Parts: sequence; C-alpha cells; structure tokens
Amino acid sequence: MKILVLHGPNLNLLGLREPGVYGSESLEEINEELQLAGSNQNAEVTCRQSNLEGELVTWIQEAKGTYDGLVINPGGYTHTSVAIRDALLAVNIPAVEVHMSNPHARESFRHRSLIEDIVIGRIAGFHKNSYVLGLQGLITALQNQEN
Amino acid sequence: MKILVLHGPNLNLLGLREPGVYGSESLEEINEELQLAGSNQNAEVTCRQSNLEGELVTWIQEAKGTYDGLVINPGGYTHTSVAIRDALLAVNIPAVEVHMSNPHARESFRHRSLIEDIVIGRIAGFHKNSYVLGLQGLITALQNQEN
Amino acid sequence: MKILVLHGPNLNLLGLREPGVYGSESLEEINEELQLAGSNQNAEVTCRQSNLEGELVTWIQEAKGTYDGLVINPGGYTHTSVAIRDALLAVNIPAVEVHMSNPHARESFRHRSLIEDIVIGRIAGFHKNSYVLGLQGLITALQNQEN
Amino acid sequence: MKILVLHGPNLNLLGLREPGVYGSESLEEINEELQLAGSNQNAEVTCRQSNLEGELVTWIQEAKGTYDGLVINPGGYTHTSVAIRDALLAVNIPAVEVHMSNPHARESFRHRSLIEDIVIGRIAGFHKNSYVLGLQGLITALQNQEN
Amino acid sequence: MKILVLHGPNLNLLGLREPGVYGSESLEEINEELQLAGSNQNAEVTCRQSNLEGELVTWIQEAKGTYDGLVINPGGYTHTSVAIRDALLAVNIPAVEVHMSNPHARESFRHRSLIEDIVIGRIAGFHKNSYVLGLQGLITALQNQEN
Amino acid sequence: MKILVLHGPNLNLLGLREPGVYGSESLEEINEELQLAGSNQNAEVTCRQSNLEGELVTWIQEAKGTYDGLVINPGGYTHTSVAIRDALLAVNIPAVEVHMSNPHARESFRHRSLIEDIVIGRIAGFHKNSYVLGLQGLITALQNQEN
Amino acid sequence: MKILVLHGPNLNLLGLREPGVYGSESLEEINEELQLAGSNQNAEVTCRQSNLEGELVTWIQEAKGTYDGLVINPGGYTHTSVAIRDALLAVNIPAVEVHMSNPHARESFRHRSLIEDIVIGRIAGFHKNSYVLGLQGLITALQNQEN
Amino acid sequence: MKILVLHGPNLNLLGLREPGVYGSESLEEINEELQLAGSNQNAEVTCRQSNLEGELVTWIQEAKGTYDGLVINPGGYTHTSVAIRDALLAVNIPAVEVHMSNPHARESFRHRSLIEDIVIGRIAGFHKNSYVLGLQGLITALQNQEN
Amino acid sequence: MKILVLHGPNLNLLGLREPGVYGSESLEEINEELQLAGSNQNAEVTCRQSNLEGELVTWIQEAKGTYDGLVINPGGYTHTSVAIRDALLAVNIPAVEVHMSNPHARESFRHRSLIEDIVIGRIAGFHKNSYVLGLQGLITALQNQEN
Amino acid sequence: MKILVLHGPNLNLLGLREPGVYGSESLEEINEELQLAGSNQNAEVTCRQSNLEGELVTWIQEAKGTYDGLVINPGGYTHTSVAIRDALLAVNIPAVEVHMSNPHARESFRHRSLIEDIVIGRIAGFHKNSYVLGLQGLITALQNQEN
Amino acid sequence: MKILVLHGPNLNLLGLREPGVYGSESLEEINEELQLAGSNQNAEVTCRQSNLEGELVTWIQEAKGTYDGLVINPGGYTHTSVAIRDALLAVNIPAVEVHMSNPHARESFRHRSLIEDIVIGRIAGFHKNSYVLGLQGLITALQNQEN
Amino acid sequence: MKILVLHGPNLNLLGLREPGVYGSESLEEINEELQLAGSNQNAEVTCRQSNLEGELVTWIQEAKGTYDGLVINPGGYTHTSVAIRDALLAVNIPAVEVHMSNPHARESFRHRSLIEDIVIGRIAGFHKNSYVLGLQGLITALQNQEN
Repeated sequence: MKILVLHGPNLNLLGLREPGVYGSESLEEINEELQLAGSNQNAEVTCRQSNLEGELVTWIQEAKGTYDGLVINPGGYTHTSVAIRDALLAVNIPAVEVHMSNPHARESFRHRSLIEDIVIGRIAGFHKNSYVLGLQGLITALQNQEN
Repeated sequence: MKILVLHGPNLNLLGLREPGVYGSESLEEINEELQLAGSNQNAEVTCRQSNLEGELVTWIQEAKGTYDGLVINPGGYTHTSVAIRDALLAVNIPAVEVHMSNPHARESFRHRSLIEDIVIGRIAGFHKNSYVLGLQGLITALQNQEN
Repeated sequence: MKILVLHGPNLNLLGLREPGVYGSESLEEINEELQLAGSNQNAEVTCRQSNLEGELVTWIQEAKGTYDGLVINPGGYTHTSVAIRDALLAVNIPAVEVHMSNPHARESFRHRSLIEDIVIGRIAGFHKNSYVLGLQGLITALQNQEN
Repeated sequence: MKILVLHGPNLNLLGLREPGVYGSESLEEINEELQLAGSNQNAEVTCRQSNLEGELVTWIQEAKGTYDGLVINPGGYTHTSVAIRDALLAVNIPAVEVHMSNPHARESFRHRSLIEDIVIGRIAGFHKNSYVLGLQGLITALQNQEN
Repeated sequence: MKILVLHGPNLNLLGLREPGVYGSESLEEINEELQLAGSNQNAEVTCRQSNLEGELVTWIQEAKGTYDGLVINPGGYTHTSVAIRDALLAVNIPAVEVHMSNPHARESFRHRSLIEDIVIGRIAGFHKNSYVLGLQGLITALQNQEN
Repeated sequence: MKILVLHGPNLNLLGLREPGVYGSESLEEINEELQLAGSNQNAEVTCRQSNLEGELVTWIQEAKGTYDGLVINPGGYTHTSVAIRDALLAVNIPAVEVHMSNPHARESFRHRSLIEDIVIGRIAGFHKNSYVLGLQGLITALQNQEN
Repeated sequence: MKILVLHGPNLNLLGLREPGVYGSESLEEINEELQLAGSNQNAEVTCRQSNLEGELVTWIQEAKGTYDGLVINPGGYTHTSVAIRDALLAVNIPAVEVHMSNPHARESFRHRSLIEDIVIGRIAGFHKNSYVLGLQGLITALQNQEN
Repeated sequence: MKILVLHGPNLNLLGLREPGVYGSESLEEINEELQLAGSNQNAEVTCRQSNLEGELVTWIQEAKGTYDGLVINPGGYTHTSVAIRDALLAVNIPAVEVHMSNPHARESFRHRSLIEDIVIGRIAGFHKNSYVLGLQGLITALQNQEN
Repeated sequence: MKILVLHGPNLNLLGLREPGVYGSESLEEINEELQLAGSNQNAEVTCRQSNLEGELVTWIQEAKGTYDGLVINPGGYTHTSVAIRDALLAVNIPAVEVHMSNPHARESFRHRSLIEDIVIGRIAGFHKNSYVLGLQGLITALQNQEN
Repeated sequence: MKILVLHGPNLNLLGLREPGVYGSESLEEINEELQLAGSNQNAEVTCRQSNLEGELVTWIQEAKGTYDGLVINPGGYTHTSVAIRDALLAVNIPAVEVHMSNPHARESFRHRSLIEDIVIGRIAGFHKNSYVLGLQGLITALQNQEN
Repeated sequence: MKILVLHGPNLNLLGLREPGVYGSESLEEINEELQLAGSNQNAEVTCRQSNLEGELVTWIQEAKGTYDGLVINPGGYTHTSVAIRDALLAVNIPAVEVHMSNPHARESFRHRSLIEDIVIGRIAGFHKNSYVLGLQGLITALQNQEN
Repeated sequence: MKILVLHGPNLNLLGLREPGVYGSESLEEINEELQLAGSNQNAEVTCRQSNLEGELVTWIQEAKGTYDGLVINPGGYTHTSVAIRDALLAVNIPAVEVHMSNPHARESFRHRSLIEDIVIGRIAGFHKNSYVLGLQGLITALQNQEN
C-alpha cells in the first residue's frame, strides 16, 4: 500500500513559525513520524510540500496509478482552490483532509473547504497528530475497501 | 484517565438503519470496541446515548469532576443546540466532536456545527472508525496536556 | 393498516388556546374524529402528543415495524428539529406533514420546515380538517403503494 | 355551491409527460374525477387550463360573482406571478393552492409561492389526489363559513 | 403631442375592487379624466389595459413612431417583467411609472420595480391622482426636451 | 391651508452644482415658484433648508399644529435617518417625499428610503418639477381628506 | 400576585461555572433573593429550572390560571426554541425576558431571541441583578395593568 | 432532422432597435440564414417569435414528436419564466440556449437563467452568430447522439 | 455618585405624542422622577435631550471626569450612529442603554443597536419604567464596581 | 490571423479522466482538430496548457502583439482568478471563454466566472465541440471587426 | 495652493483618549505638524473639527472656490453619511480620505466607507502619519494635475 | 534598514498597459524611484515581481531574518490568496499594502482584501505615488517601533 502525503503552502515553516500554536517539530520530523507510522502498517508513505497551487495539482494528477490513497493538508488553498478539487475529482483516489489547527475557530473565510464534500474523511485540530490520525483512518478505510 | 462518550439522537438505531451507509455494527458493539481501545491506553471509557437534548446537557454537566475528556457525536443536535454548546463551555472539559458520515457532503443545514469552534478537534467521515480515531486523538491530547 | 398520528409541542392546548384561530375542539375530540375516519377506511389510528423533542424522536423510532404510515404535526419543532428529520429518514415510514394554520402567513422563521422535502405530502391551513385530509391522503397513498 | 378549478401552464400535458412521476391519467380524467367528487357533495365543479399568465388572471377576475371557491394549481406561475396574486386579492374568493408534486423537494426557486400566504389552505405531494383533497378541504371550509 | 397610457393586469377592476383603497371611480372614468387633462395641454391621450404581459410588450413596441411619451402602471408585472423593461429600452420613448398605492408600504417583493431605473420619473401613492400627476410631469418633461 | 416644504442637506447648492443635472435655478427661485403655485390653490407655502439632521427633526416637530401638510426632500438623510422618520411618525402630518433625480438610477445605497412607507405619496425624477407635482398632489390629498 | 421565574438549561450551574463572569452566587441564592424581593411587593415568587426544552414548555402551559406573570431566562433555548415561543403565545401571560450577560457582546447566533418580540420587556447584562430588575419591571407593569 | 428555433419577446425588433448593438439585420434575415445553414447539414429549420410567455410554452409543448431539437433565445423570459423551464423539462427535447449579447456584462438580474442547467449547451455574445453557432452545436450533438 | 441621563431625538415630545403608546407623562416629569429615584440612592441625576447627533456626541465627551455613569436612550440614533458609539468608547464611562418600547417588536431596521455590545446592560419595553430600572441597574453596578 | 488557445488546470487529463463525461479524445487530438479547423479559415492556431495560474497569466501577457484572439478555458481558475482577468484586461485581445461541460449544471461555486463579463462570447456544454464553436465564433468576430 | 483638513466627530479627543492606540499628541499638535508640512511645499493648510455631520457638510460646501484640495477623516460619519458624500460630489474638489487606525481590523460596520469610491486616494493605519502622508499625496496629485 | 517591495501579477506590464490609468512609467522606473527614496532615508530597498502566487509566498517566507519591512501590492491575488495572508502571518514582518488605483471604485469583488486586517497600513489610489507614500509610511513606522 502506497500513500502520498501532500502539504500545501507555508507548511514548510513548521517548527519555525508560531511554535506555541503549531508545536516545535519541523515538517521533516513530522514526515519521518508519518513514514514510521505507515511502515508499522505495511504502508509506504511519501511526503511532498509546495507553495504553488499548480504544482500540488500536478502531483495529485501524477498520483494516479502510483498511490492508493492521499492525505492532504492544502493549507491556504483549502478555501480557494477549485483546481485542487478538480484534480482530486479527476484522479479519484481516496483522500483524507487534515488540518493542524481547527479552521472553524479562526476567520470566517476559513470555514469553507472546497474539498470538504469529496474526501472520505476530515480531521482537524489535533496539531501534528491530525496527520497521524488521518493516515491511520485512510489505511483502515483502504483495508476495508479491499475486503 | 476517564473518558465519557456521548451519542446523540438516533444513534441508538445503528446497525438497524441504513447499514449500507452506517455499517452493520450496533451501538453496543461500537461501545465495546471503544472500551477495549480505551483500556489498551489505560483509559476507562463510559458510553451513553439519549434522544433528549436536555438529558445530553445534564450528562455533560455531571461529567465535571468525574471525566477527563469527552468524545461527543451530538447527531441532529450538532446543528441546532446552543444548550449543548453552553454546557460544554460551562464544564470546560476537553472534548472531541465526531461524526460517522461527512456532514459537508449532505444538506446545507448540516454544514454548521454549534460546537465546531470550542472542541479541541473534529473528525468526520470514517464511519465507526471516527469514534476510534477521536478517542485516540483525545487521549493523546490529554497526555500531552499532562506533561 | 396502522397509522400513527404525532402531535408536537403545545398541541395539547387545543380547544383552550385561541379558539378563534384553532377552533373549540380539544385534542381528544380531534383524535377521536381521526380514529373514526380511519376505521371507516379499515385503518387503525393511534394518536400521541409530546412537548419533548426527544420523546417524539423515540416514538418515530419505535413506529418502525408497527405502523404503516405517520401523520405528523411537529408544532414548533417543525422549524428547528434536525433530530426529528433524522428519525423519519432512519425509519423510512411514509409520512404526511400537517399544520392547522398556514405557516407561510405567519413569521418568516415558520416558512422553513425541516421535514418538508422528505414527507410524501403536506397539508396546511384547514384547521382540524388538515389532519383529516392528511390521514385520507396518507391512506390513499399507502393503498396505491400496495397495488 | 360552484367551484372553479384552475390549472396553470404545462398541466395540459398530464398523462403524456413523465407518467412515472405524475401518473398516467390525463387532465381530462382528473377533471372528470373532480366533477364527480364535487357532485357527491352538491358542488358544481368547472375546470380550466391555460399556459397564459394573463388568461389565468382574467379567469380569476371573472370568477367574482359566479363561483364560491377556487382550487388553483398555478404551475410555474406559482413562483413568479404577482399578477395572479393580485387577482386573487382583488376578487377575494376563498382559494386553495394545490401541487401534484412537493415543490420543497425540488429546485430552491420553487420553495417560494407568491400566493402561499393568501390562500385558506395548501396541499402538495399527493399527485392527482392533491386536487381531490383540496376540493374536499375547500368545500368543508365553505360549508363551515356558511354556518 | 401624443401620449399612450398603459394599465397592467387587474387595473380593469378599478372601482369594483376594494373601493376603500383604490377609490370608487372605474378605469373608464380615470381614462376620461386623463384625456381631458391631456387635451387641456394640447396632448392627445390614448389608454389601454391588458392582463397579458406579452400584449403590453407589443403595445410598447408599436408605440414607436406614434407616441411621444408613455405613462405606464405595469401592475403586478412591475416587479417581475424583464420583457417590459426590454421593450421600453428598445423603443426608447420617455416613460413615467405610476402606482396608485405606495408599493413600499406593502409586501417586500413589491419594493423592487424592474423599470425603476430607466423611466424619467416615478409617482406613487396618490391614488387616481398618481396618473394625473404623472401625465402632467411627462408633458412638462417633453416640452422642456423640445426646447 | 398651510404647507411646509423642507429641503435636506446640499439642496442649498441648487443652481450652483451640476446645472446639467439639476437645472440652473437656485433654491430660492424654486421656493418662489412653489409659493406661487401654492397661492394659486389657496395654500400658504413656507420653505426651509438645513444641512443638520437634528434641525430638520426639530422643524418637523414644530410643524405640529401650524402646518396641514409637508413636502420633504431629505437629501442624503433619506437613506440614513431614523430620527426624521420618527419625527414624521410623531407629528403625524400628511407628508409627500420628493426627489429631483431618480434615486433608483443611482448607487444601491440610495434605493432604500427610511420614510418611503410612511408618506402618503412619493415623486422622483422630474427635477424641480418633482416639487411642484408633490405640492399639487399633497394639496389635492388634503382637500379630499377634508371632504 | 403570583410570579413564576423560569431558568433554562445550564443555569443550575450558577456559582460553580465561570464565577468571574456570572458571580459566585448559586441559583438557590438568587431564587431566595427573588422571593424576598417579591414578598416586599406582595408578590409570591416561584422558581424552576430545567435543561429540557419540553419541560419548560409544559411549565409555561401549566402557568395558565395560576400565575399572573413570568420572568424567563431561556438560556440556550432563547435562540432556537419556537416551542417556547408558541407556549408563551398560547398562555398569553405577561412575560419578561432576562439574561445575566449581554448576548449582543457574544457570538452572532446569540443576537436573535425567538421571544424578543412577544415579551413585554427585556433586560440583559446586569448579572444576577437582571432578574431582580426584571421581576420589579414585571410587577410594576402588572400593577399598572390592573388599574 | 427537424429543428425549431424560438425567439422570445422583443426579438421581433431586431434590425430596428439599437443596430449598433444588435446589428442591422432583421429577424427575418437571421431566420433565412439559419434555414440556409440548416439545409446545408440536412436539417429543416422552422423559426417562431412571440412576446407571450404562454405562447412560447405552447410551442415548446407542441414540438414534442415533431422536432428533434430546439434553439431557444427566451429574451427577457430567460430570467423569470419557470413555465418555459417546465415545458422544456416536460417535452425533454435537446435544447440549446442562445443570447445575442452577453447577459453577464449587463444588469445583475440578467445573470441567472432559469434554463441554464437543463439545456445541453449555451452560447452568448456573438450577436446573430450566436444563433448560427448554437444551431451548429445542436446538430452535431444530435448526430453524435444518433450514433 | 453623579449620573448623566441622555435622551435622543424626538423624546422631547413625550406626553404629547401617541400617549397610548408612550404614556401621558412629559419628559420633564420623567426627569423629575429619575432625579428623585437617584437621590434616594445618593446619586445626583442630570438629564439632557437633543435632536442633534453631534450634540449628543459632545455631551458624552464632556461627561468624562464629571459623571460616574450614563443612562442613554439614543432614540433613532440607536440604529445609525457610529459617532455616538465612538464617543462612548472614547470616554469609557459605564453606560446603560434604555428604550421605552421594545425595538424588536417594530421594524427590522430597529433590531440592530450600534451600542448594544459596549454598554454594561440594556433594558427595553417597560415604558418610562425602563429609565427607572436602568438607573437602578447602573447604580448597583457602580456600587459593586467600587467594592 | 493567429489564435492562441489556452487550457487551464487538469485539462491535460482529457481522454484519461471520466471519458463518459469528457469524451475519449486526448487534449492532443483536440488541439489537432482545432489547428485543422483554424487552417481551413486561414487562421494559425497555437495551443498551450498549464496547471499554474501564474503561467497562464504570463502566456496571456505574452500574447500581446503576437496573437489576434484568444480561446480560453481557464478550468478551475475560471471561478477564482482575478489575476487571469487582469491579464486579459491588460492585453485587451478579443477572447472567447469555453467550457466542455455546463458549469451551471454543477456546484454553485462554478456559477460565477471571473471573466464572464469581459470576453466577447461564451460557449459551454458541447464537450470538445465547445472549443470548435468558440474558435469559429472568434474568427468570425475578428473578421467582422476588420471590415 | 490651499488645503482644508477636516476632522470628524471625536477626533477632538486625540491625545486624551486611548493614547496607547492613537498616540499622545493632541489634535492641535497634529494640526500644527500638518501646517508645517504644508508650508514646506508652499501649501497653506487650514484645519477644522466638528462633531456635527451637518456642520461638516457646510464646511465642505464652503470650500468651493477657496480650497484646492481636501484631506478628510470623517470619523464615525465615514460609514453612515450620505450627506457628506453628496457634499463632496457637489463641490467636486479633489479629496483624500484618511484614518488613523485601520478600519478593516475593527468591527464589520466600519469596513464600508461611503466616500471610498469618490476620493482620489485613501490612507489608513499609520496613526497621525496617515494625515501627513495624505496631505503629501494630495499635494503631489494637485501638482501633477496642474501640469 | 532593509525593505522588500513585492509586486504581484500583471504589474510587470506597467507603462505598457493603459498608460492613461497607470501612468507611462515602467515597473523598472518605479523600482528605481523607490530605491532612491529609500536610500534618502538610509533604507535599502529590494524589488521583486511575480505572476505566481506560490512564488510570492516563498519570497515572503524568505524575507524572515533578512528584511525589516514589506511593501506589498498583491495585484489580483489581493482578493483571493489565503496563502499570501498565511505567509505574512507566519513571518510576522511589518507590512504595508499598496494599490495604484482605488479598488473601491472598481468591481465589487475587488472591495475585499485578504490582508487588509493584518497589515500595519494601507494606501490606494495615488498611482505610482502609492508606493512612495507606502514606503515612507513603513519607514516611519519602523523607526517609531525602534524607539
């Protein structure tokens, strides 16, 4: 089982930016933790980050045929990108949407996610643990689907 | 560590109602699975269900001083109950909101949750696994908080 | 054929409250008239009233397997109860929504009904006759369905 | 007692159009059924259909002094015609609004009726039976009014 | 100078309908008064009434080349007819919009007029005198325009 | 019969400001024309202008017992002053609202008038003639009222 | 004179919950103070609290014939309960709405009260004193009404 | 293959009205061009224009069984006619919506078309060429459908 | 303790205007009653009324350093004056907002108060008694604050 | 005559993605068809696709001076890109907007296009034929413009 | 070159009110700084402050013919005064809108300015420096205009 | 002191595009003017332009630790980019938002800026001078902050 984890804009700053809110771990450390958690369940986890909306679109397109599932935190593009939604619709790979903080406790323009209705599940607010729970939920869903 | 799991209206029908959507397990089986998962992490899990908004309010009030955290699926009251919100604000116990299906893929009046901005985390769409992931996320959060 | 008639909050006051608007017959007299009208068409009619949203939810749940159809006037819960909607969706028994007065000639918050799109028919404005017509419409629909 | 039944645009297609939804009876057969039902209660029923908004307005105007009550299904003009509303307000004859399907289970622009607050009663969703129940409700209301 | 006065739907009922509100004069009497008022200012006044939106559209089209100005009370079509607006835009004859009652003291859907921004002037609330003042305002405007 | 004409803010600039739009006559010339038109119908006309919302409120209050009717062009306060509305409601003197231009052909915040539903009539778009027509409409209405 | 004071959901926690905001007095102490204040004006005061919307509805119904006036703080049901509104409309007993905090300084969904237009008076923001002032305002209003 | 082209209100004025915007060709010339373009692809083209909403409804109804496809420019009824929408839904003949100008570059009430979601294709802004392209797109779609 | 009571526009008409609604007492009599009520609690009460928004702003500014608390009924400026809000924010003196009638039982533009979230308490609907209760609530709040 | 065809994000997947909806032809085959159709009318057609909003912006900028017209399908950026709109406004080259499917039959956030009011024409719903018709419409418009 | 600087309501409190936010300089000191900055660029600067909306309107009117440009901070009237907008439109003197704080970081009713679209430039958030930059921007714009 | 000036999409066209609106100077000339203005105040100014949202995000991220302040004109991304907002929030460098034209005098979707509430100041409408004033305002703010 192969899983692609996609991080959207500004997530490369994790550990550097507002550690009181986002924790002190860097994106690299989170990625390593996800790879370890994946390998414990026989899932190979690949992680990528981009600040470019179009690059995220391209990576989602290329996931077709290679990856069994996606864990995606589109960052600021969550609320504005029809293109990422369209890419997810086109490749039709099961995806889980994760957020480190809780968007509903923030500005109102963060309350709408453009992928919220096409993902299989959504997790928010558990800081780095959102990723771990999302990966776990995705793997279980893929396993159930196989049976 | 003691955790209270609250199920709102109609969740007592699980297993009987639309098994294609909600799975064939009954609420009792889910509760047992949660208790088992809790005990694996030294957490004692108690589960309750009510169709009455006011009874859920009372149970949240009574949790004060007894439970360390709440996992709550308010069912139809998610979208309409200011009283449940007020109870959660009053007792101030860390709570996780879970939904078996994804409310954002359903009618628009389900898109707003009246507790979405006061819980520590939210999980939706993983069917019964939403509860398991929510319990796990809560326990981790409580452990981090203790340290 | 067995029919359950559910009256929501404040309908127990019929005959006492604003007789100019709602007529001078009590809820008991209306119930008797419905039972008589039902028995004329070989339908057994049971009537219940509650001021508690959750009790109405429970009665709808329990109707599953016992009743062939529902006539429901959810009173003030018409406009606010997702829980009653969910109960009707869960038991999937043909239901008719009735109102004694015409909600669209009243305050704007009465213009939306949370069950308006999931019932088989709706009747409003005929005072106690709304119930009689609703019962009749339901029985005909159930008979057509059987053929 | 004389009753005028008015059918708005496209209702002349009944029986031909989507019989799965609207039933296989033609408008003529429904009209005959209404006339029979009326005569059983000593009411003379006249039926007319038009695709022209202004013609419906004229017929409502001409009903003044001739008919005791109106059963009206304004079809697509339900949601857009202030002129039909004004005609009903001007002649001030008791009217019942009927719809074969349930407008609230359809597109949102069908959720508002421009006559919903000025009719004595409303019935929707019972297919051809909506007309029968509406006629019956109107006759009862007119009889009560006479006493 | 030739002026066309157009009356929309239901205005043929004047004098018969709600005399307390609209006065006891018939449309014919109002038309005669307008013709007299016109001839006092060397303006020939023609009056027409229709319940049909399309017929009003056609009359506006045909006014091109024959009439110097329009006084129009579109009745219920005021609030819904883009076709009448388009006809006025196409013929480009100076027009005055009149209403006998004050639409802003009535239902909210009467607050928007679809011709309110393309007429040279608007008059409402003076009962039959709205027509007289509108005719007078139009004649003065046409006279100023000539100079 | 005594009539008070009230001009709101910036109307003191008439004749000086945008003569292409508002005509080249000064406010004084318009006032004289109104006084002449009034005296032709045995009405004594007094005219006042203020840029101060509260001064207009005071003048309306003081009109009680002195004037039989009001012609008012509240200028920019048309759209924002609840205080002027309250003054008109308190003194309960018949009032006519006039505007030289057509507010509905301008910015959307000019489309709502806070007195539009409490005046007996409204006239807009006839430039200085709006005042003359408004005065005439008011006098006729007061005469009818007396009979 | 007999007065019923109704406390809605979560008000049983007073004194325990957020004492910085709501004061350190318990609901019992407030009730005693109200009874004392009432007896000083020859009014007998009864106090009840419930977390159940339907139970509040029932108590309002039962007040008919027993109590002369109501002081009600519907808590979270203020913003969502049409049923409580309907009960107040049905019994038609003069009622005063009170809130300890100021709902308009809180979340936007607290800005609408479903009983705000049918009570005789409203008081908010004076903490426990809101109840005292409300009781006093009610008693004075009942006394004036008697004269 | 037989195609019906329907022109809504005011399109009979083409060539006469605002030639700078709509071109100098009359509706007859456009119709001839469409018939020629059709015959080049073995399609017989019939063209009709009406200012009456109900007449357009009737023509759409009568197209059933005679025509294989519709090209329709509903003019001002585009934005207001549920009846035309219902007729198109009832006959279920493939239809293309065309506009000579671009409605989105005009007033906001022209931005919504009531048939925009039920036609197979939409073309706007190419002046008379919108019809030609629409006819061509319809013929190709019908040909593909046959294969 | 010194208290300033500010009355906004049109309140100088009390006793003269709609005595059925506002009572027959003049503003002077109410002011005397407030001064008496104040002196009973060792508070010196000064009362002022203005129809000018800017004058109310100036009086609020000048209250700084002289008065301990404000009772304010901004009349029509309640719903439109950001300047009064800013003055209250600037001087930061505890203020109570009072209304004689209940704004929520009136037009919708009266439902928003621009000071509703910055006052310590709000009272509406008790006619002249709203002032008395508001004064009393303010004095108690100031006394608590001192302790 | 030189035409630039721009394809936005995800259109590179044509033929691979949902062939039932979008047809089985690849983007390359469509481009070839467009080049052939162009050369039949002496127009040289160049085609480009990008997933990057900014790259599309740059290509539009560079079209200035090289291309006579644009056919653009901005894909998901249709609904969100002010930058693409600004680029089209800046270069001021005639452009046609095309969509393969009909956005108005899809999610509501697809109903607004940010270039809908600045293109010369719009075509939607004809699948790959939308491009062919758009190219044809553009060429005709450019030819008319030259004359 | 002569410049008029207008300060709206409550700005007379500068230096006294919330010095942490607005700085410790008084309005007089700011005015002196503006006069000095003006004289360095050969511009004579006059400064005025009023709490009265109508007085600001009058000063803008009187600026016609005396001043070459306006710097205006309308304070709370920014968001509510159509009269000030109308005065600016009438005198047609180039104006710059300044705010000391950033209105978009405050309450939502401060986000709309009624003069935002008719000034030549806007500056906000630089505290007293907003005035200095605004004066400088205005002088440069007037100098460019002269050339 | 080091300042980074960021230009968003399409600003590279300055001088080429609509010189009547944006002036005839190229972006390079503006940048040189900014560098000169900066060096006069001992500030080193670096300027960058990109059409790519993600590249702007990256440059903002990289500014951390290198630059003391940002002057940013996000062009079309002003209204749509949550990612740029998030980058500014993450690096927390004082930023000034500038626009050459006045967005509030343009289309309504330009009225909202997604960074308007998190910058220290905003300047719009002064053409190239907006940048100069913005730079000056930023330098002054940074100097004050240092003290």
